[in-house]
Amino acid sequence: MKSKLLLSLVAVTLAGSALAQVKNEDAIKWRQSGYAVMAWNMGKLKAMLVDNPASFNKDQAVAAANTIAALANSGMGALYLPGSDKGKGWVETRVKPELFTDGEGVKKVAIAFNKEANELAKLAATGDAAAIKAQFGKVGETCKSCHDKFRKEEK
Amino acid sequence: MKSKLLLSLVAVTLAGSALAQVKNEDAIKWRQSGYAVMAWNMGKLKAMLVDNPASFNKDQAVAAANTIAALANSGMGALYLPGSDKGKGWVETRVKPELFTDGEGVKKVAIAFNKEANELAKLAATGDAAAIKAQFGKVGETCKSCHDKFRKEEK
Repeated sequence: MKSKLLLSLVAVTLAGSALAQVKNEDAIKWRQSGYAVMAWNMGKLKAMLVDNPASFNKDQAVAAANTIAALANSGMGALYLPGSDKGKGWVETRVKPELFTDGEGVKKVAIAFNKEANELAKLAATGDAAAIKAQFGKVGETCKSCHDKFRKEEK
Repeated sequence: MKSKLLLSLVAVTLAGSALAQVKNEDAIKWRQSGYAVMAWNMGKLKAMLVDNPASFNKDQAVAAANTIAALANSGMGALYLPGSDKGKGWVETRVKPELFTDGEGVKKVAIAFNKEANELAKLAATGDAAAIKAQFGKVGETCKSCHDKFRKEEK
């Protein structure tokens, strides 16, 4: 299925309709993937800003920050389809039901993450390691506040 | 752009330094996640450029193209750690052993993808749907050429 999907992406003459309707299992898989990519890039930043500052590399900081910001701007909210509060993407979703009911709370964490992630990308471009490190901390706080509120503990 | 390109290529050979403590299972999970995020965003572009052009939305096209370009620039090559030709991330890896031996071939597909993905992001910013559609096709071709060469068929 995945291979068929990817092949269909390049066959631009094909009038596929399967992509128009996103399945819950794909939506869950894509959001799990988005968060995993963010975790990878936050980990790279942590390594060069916190664990081993001597390894700081501006180009790699920019690449990581841009990836996190692009995902923050990518509209992942659309992947929280009605009914996708339960279900399996790569693994069972850990989303709490509150994410689908607490509109104000979701908006708050989403706006905070988007703001701090875009600021991180902006600061990364300056190459100022101290400023990037401080902003990296702020982004991490927005991750945590969403996890605390809307993600179940791992079993 | 040139430095971004070099970064993602050089990262392949630097996999041993900053990422020394990355486990194969995480590396495989993160690359699977990166490709899944790309598939999601290519799917969104296909929907608005090919399947239902009336749904074209510049902001969404920019967001999708920027996410694909950011991933192209993110140094995913570093996730192909020695020994990660086999193993399980979210699922068993489908990478072919050739990816770890055919340096020239990998370089060729990596350069092509990086170039076309960055051009896609550049064109998306213009909002010219026809130009974006043509470039979307070029990006898809680079996806397919890598899949054909370095990814096993799904069982």
